[in-house]
Amino acid sequence: MSKPDPKATTYEPLNEGVGEWAPARVTLPIPMGEVAARTSVDMATARAAASFDPTRIEETLRDARIDNESRIKVMTVLSKDPIFANWKKRMPHMNREQQMRQSHFACRRILELGEQNEWTTHEIVEAVLTLDLQSPITIHWVAFVPVIFGQGNAEQIERWGEKAMNHEILGCYMQTELGHGTNVQQLETTCTYDEESDGFVLHSPTLTSTKWWAGGLGTTSTHGIVQAQLIIKGKSYGPHLFFCQLRDMETGKLLDGLVAGDIGPKTYGAFGGLDNGWARFDHFKIPRDHMLSKHAKVKKGGEYVKPPSDKLSYGGMIFIRSQMIDRTGWMLSRGVTIATRYTLVRRQFRDPSSKDVNDVERSVLSYPSTARRILPLLAKAYAYILAGRRMRTLYEDMAQQLEEGNTELLADVHVASSSLKAYCTKQALDGIEECRQALGGHGFLASAGFTQVFPEQAPAVTYEGDNIVLASQVGRAMLKLSGELDGNSSAKVAATSGFLKAISQANAIPFTQPKSSADWYKPEVYSAALGLRAAQLVVDLRAEIKSGRPFVDLSFECIEVAKSHAEFVVDLWFGEGIRDDAQRLGEKECAWLNKLVTLHALTALSRNITPLVLPASQGRALAGYKTGQAILAPESVILLEKAIRELVTEILPQVIGLSDGFGWLDWELGSSLGRKDGRVYEHLMADAEANPLNHPGAVPSLETIDKVGIYKYGSANTGKGIPDWYGSEIGPLLTAAARRANL
Amino acid sequence: MSKPDPKATTYEPLNEGVGEWAPARVTLPIPMGEVAARTSVDMATARAAASFDPTRIEETLRDARIDNESRIKVMTVLSKDPIFANWKKRMPHMNREQQMRQSHFACRRILELGEQNEWTTHEIVEAVLTLDLQSPITIHWVAFVPVIFGQGNAEQIERWGEKAMNHEILGCYMQTELGHGTNVQQLETTCTYDEESDGFVLHSPTLTSTKWWAGGLGTTSTHGIVQAQLIIKGKSYGPHLFFCQLRDMETGKLLDGLVAGDIGPKTYGAFGGLDNGWARFDHFKIPRDHMLSKHAKVKKGGEYVKPPSDKLSYGGMIFIRSQMIDRTGWMLSRGVTIATRYTLVRRQFRDPSSKDVNDVERSVLSYPSTARRILPLLAKAYAYILAGRRMRTLYEDMAQQLEEGNTELLADVHVASSSLKAYCTKQALDGIEECRQALGGHGFLASAGFTQVFPEQAPAVTYEGDNIVLASQVGRAMLKLSGELDGNSSAKVAATSGFLKAISQANAIPFTQPKSSADWYKPEVYSAALGLRAAQLVVDLRAEIKSGRPFVDLSFECIEVAKSHAEFVVDLWFGEGIRDDAQRLGEKECAWLNKLVTLHALTALSRNITPLVLPASQGRALAGYKTGQAILAPESVILLEKAIRELVTEILPQVIGLSDGFGWLDWELGSSLGRKDGRVYEHLMADAEANPLNHPGAVPSLETIDKVGIYKYGSANTGKGIPDWYGSEIGPLLTAAARRANL
Repeated sequence: MSKPDPKATTYEPLNEGVGEWAPARVTLPIPMGEVAARTSVDMATARAAASFDPTRIEETLRDARIDNESRIKVMTVLSKDPIFANWKKRMPHMNREQQMRQSHFACRRILELGEQNEWTTHEIVEAVLTLDLQSPITIHWVAFVPVIFGQGNAEQIERWGEKAMNHEILGCYMQTELGHGTNVQQLETTCTYDEESDGFVLHSPTLTSTKWWAGGLGTTSTHGIVQAQLIIKGKSYGPHLFFCQLRDMETGKLLDGLVAGDIGPKTYGAFGGLDNGWARFDHFKIPRDHMLSKHAKVKKGGEYVKPPSDKLSYGGMIFIRSQMIDRTGWMLSRGVTIATRYTLVRRQFRDPSSKDVNDVERSVLSYPSTARRILPLLAKAYAYILAGRRMRTLYEDMAQQLEEGNTELLADVHVASSSLKAYCTKQALDGIEECRQALGGHGFLASAGFTQVFPEQAPAVTYEGDNIVLASQVGRAMLKLSGELDGNSSAKVAATSGFLKAISQANAIPFTQPKSSADWYKPEVYSAALGLRAAQLVVDLRAEIKSGRPFVDLSFECIEVAKSHAEFVVDLWFGEGIRDDAQRLGEKECAWLNKLVTLHALTALSRNITPLVLPASQGRALAGYKTGQAILAPESVILLEKAIRELVTEILPQVIGLSDGFGWLDWELGSSLGRKDGRVYEHLMADAEANPLNHPGAVPSLETIDKVGIYKYGSANTGKGIPDWYGSEIGPLLTAAARRANL
Repeated sequence: MSKPDPKATTYEPLNEGVGEWAPARVTLPIPMGEVAARTSVDMATARAAASFDPTRIEETLRDARIDNESRIKVMTVLSKDPIFANWKKRMPHMNREQQMRQSHFACRRILELGEQNEWTTHEIVEAVLTLDLQSPITIHWVAFVPVIFGQGNAEQIERWGEKAMNHEILGCYMQTELGHGTNVQQLETTCTYDEESDGFVLHSPTLTSTKWWAGGLGTTSTHGIVQAQLIIKGKSYGPHLFFCQLRDMETGKLLDGLVAGDIGPKTYGAFGGLDNGWARFDHFKIPRDHMLSKHAKVKKGGEYVKPPSDKLSYGGMIFIRSQMIDRTGWMLSRGVTIATRYTLVRRQFRDPSSKDVNDVERSVLSYPSTARRILPLLAKAYAYILAGRRMRTLYEDMAQQLEEGNTELLADVHVASSSLKAYCTKQALDGIEECRQALGGHGFLASAGFTQVFPEQAPAVTYEGDNIVLASQVGRAMLKLSGELDGNSSAKVAATSGFLKAISQANAIPFTQPKSSADWYKPEVYSAALGLRAAQLVVDLRAEIKSGRPFVDLSFECIEVAKSHAEFVVDLWFGEGIRDDAQRLGEKECAWLNKLVTLHALTALSRNITPLVLPASQGRALAGYKTGQAILAPESVILLEKAIRELVTEILPQVIGLSDGFGWLDWELGSSLGRKDGRVYEHLMADAEANPLNHPGAVPSLETIDKVGIYKYGSANTGKGIPDWYGSEIGPLLTAAARRANL
């Protein structure tokens, strides 16, 4: 790549024009200058330095719901569509009501595009997901369709499932209420069997029983599934699921006996295109066959037929959590891709050791404080994607077993999915914002591309099981499993909890003190250390229980127990995930990904090294260790930091290749700073020139919403705009101020 | 407070109606139910349990820019004004362009209210700040006015200062450029002395020299101060400050030789009412006397007169940082107040030990995983507010000295303000989001009140000195100061760096190993431990330097050095801040605040205990300690956690009183979950009923912006709304889907 002429004052376009949008480019006659001219060269040079093929990684990891070729086909259609081409740039200029209208418009448009381009259902879902809007169709697919198929009987699946798959009906899933979310057993909505009509009556008896949060419910869904307390002849049978129609299909009018609406804007502007809703039922009648009856059912006359096992309906809860792990990794990878690219081309401060005043400033990514911040996050993103693939496979194995009435895998999958959901969602959320902060001041611009990522990831730490509550469940499981091992040291434990054996069996996890930083790169050292730390924390938890503290008061301690458990599991599955796809990935690609496995493990250890260096107190030593003995020597800790430093230095020249491996298209990222070609300053300036606020004119009403947020590249008025209201606000302000001053 | 009747279906208003807004209340005929009826009682009970007077704390700490009485006077005017009464509820319904117009409107309106109510300038600033908009007037006051007064000579202050104080001109401060922010020395804008006209010529030579970020510049400022490289007769004298007019006062038209505009929306919807701007100068002429000349000046003919000391102009940078500490504490205190109140009244799960099925569920705040999360954040908020008061005083002392040419305090104030700015802004940002997460799912609603807080705090970690860069400066200062002590053990060090003596002088920080959890409550234990940890980290940093690593490669290590330094200083100043105001605060109030000092210190230690428990490696022991010896015994760590637990338990019954002590008014918090009276479920339901999205009608255009985001309490249409566009989008979507399915 040749360097653009720093003296040139005309600029190449930054993208193609589509519809009313001219191609983006700088239009003022500005000499580019050395700093801006260098960015594309820096990026090309860094990309060329990759000693592996990023597309092999992309093609392997993107082969999920749809394969990579199909994904790119779908994205290409969207990125050339007049409505969607500049979608991500327009959204921050719309208010909630405008975003909601655009979301409905987009749903209709995507189904049209799907028909025109003969997309599969999965391709349609991919297209909807990629808009960063969390539209009602997303929720229809994530929460409504799977519940019908997972909890309905064959007849119900035939009756409703196909219509839902075809979008002939749009549905929502109503579980959470105003007063209860985490404690599902305490939901207040009732569904009472009425013998006379042989049907059910749905009712919301109190303010806090109002259904709350269901996506799509607010203004869209024609149908829904309601979780309610089943009551037959005065006796409560606990929460069950009921299917019902909500709105008239043609007019959208809510049915009688039902009130509903949108619950309001979400924090940080998140989910602007999703109508999370509220609903209240007033003795609302539904037929008896509307209870989802794969497991339990109610017969004519009110006889209740129990499910064959209480555990069978757990599958659904675990399903969503187990799908969240890789999704979380992908979200983090967006932040990482942007941060890697921008900090590479951003230069700030000359190296103080340089004697040549003509030396250019140093790439921000080359500072250890940046590299040490971002590379572990790169490793985490790959870790969650690959561990998440394992999680899905394990879930599918379990679901298969459950179909056959076998619950063997259930406990392990429950614990692992709870642990990883809680850990990965939090790490990803923090990591995304850390990436934004690493960009410096420009990261605060919406166009940096985080406006869609952080807010969208924010609720993941509280929905589908609050992370802190899930951590307690992991803690409880560790106590139970370790207790079983106490009684029977040869009891079977899943690989994800294998470290528990170290509590009572010396050498269950053989560990040799590292003698050099290179020793830390051995899996038998770092994975062992992760296992020993997790085991030590369980021992500490058991000691607190032994000291008389009740489990319910140990919820704080469980947080670290669950974190260390999760880091052990992610390490295990990250490595396994690479081996699963080794052939397709290729040798060099695996080698670099395996370096990320090591980096992930070492930085996970460094996050909390205390349990390994603290000499064991009385009664808190692992088997084979003595009271007063620490697992790790002080020198090993110094070597650990050295190992991390050296590994970061080794990986650094490969990071553009590694972030390319995620395969994000510029259109998907929607980021001026994360451009694949590195032309960040041109992009920032082009958008600042064309920013709609600088090109006044009556802001369009809802009816002409297609005009909202259009960037006017190349307007003659560039840099000279005066807002419509200057004359009514700022002018009079100054005049009045002058009058007051002269009183 | 008597409990509302759970069976009642009519509701008391939640506030007063103002203008077009009816009073907020639930209007559907819903029985309240036990859960909702209990919240106000729980809140009143918890408030009554305070064993001190929160108003004494409020009145003391709120006595800042204006006293508390004046603050409440101003807020009361705003909360009863038709424009501002529901300001915070309306903002999330406006898009960027609408928010910007509202911001200009608000600026004019507040100056009018100021005139009507005879507000002082400080009261006007307080009114503007409280709108959570970061309006151009805020920046005028924070960045433009202080620079004129701090860097202008007497004649310039007279010429421009008074006009600025009266809002006869509105200004911005242009420092950062597209290509350079952190590295100020490398700014590219030039200001060249022109001998012929005896004036200066401002010029933007390259793309990356475009001025960027200046608040108010985009669409508002009539004037500005530009930082540019001073060039006289071909020689560069480095960055200097220049005053210039930007726009025609009457029309708002940009002057010739200048293009400018708004840089675009910010991340997470932040700063929607601030027009951060860009500007380019094309050989733009300004008079010679427009260079701010308190220190340096240029004489007729081009003779450059150096400032008496290079250090004199540092004051300005330090000024803004030193003002950020308590502001950061106040921002955090908003999150803490909301989290404390909502988690108190939110109940989830019965205590498993209870045998009585009629027992109510447990307050979420009573779970250790919640209390241990929120109480340390409560302590941090008070810590930053009180340490921030000390910081301001110290700054003023230093500024006074600088006026007299005395730079004695400069180094200490520079290091302390850098350290605390970097540490407190990050802790507060993380803490605010932690508070939101502690709310569970409902924290994701904009009405929870975090939409204004987290995004507004987000840029603080990168502006006014990137936190990571500041951490390196702290690290460098610690190396320098400790080096000076090597050479001269009786060298004078400021109290904020006093711990450095422990590196070479045994017993500089006497420390006795705690023998009980209560021992940890002694300042001579916890403050000493904080000092020893900070010293140990400096020793580790020195060891890395000794091993041959250059300082520039130690930027990652400096982060923890700076954190531990900051925690030592916050601890020191938090305690001193309470003592400074002890009489006014009162005895009981001080006693509880001092428990927060302890809690802050203990949790700061617990954050990273490793340096204290790791046996010293060769060459890394503090004076008086041997190689292989740790500072803290393993049992002390267990006692530390016990001490924290017991202290949290002791403080817990006082938290409603302690959060009341911040003195936030419901109107200021703008939070449905943080209501002082605890009526959260009623508030959520009332707003869900009235949410504008549920009451369709053409969305107003910009001209009728006063109609945007009005909540329709008590409308006959409640719960039955159909969006305007259902007929054009969702209806056709379903019809087309049915057609496709039947093909």
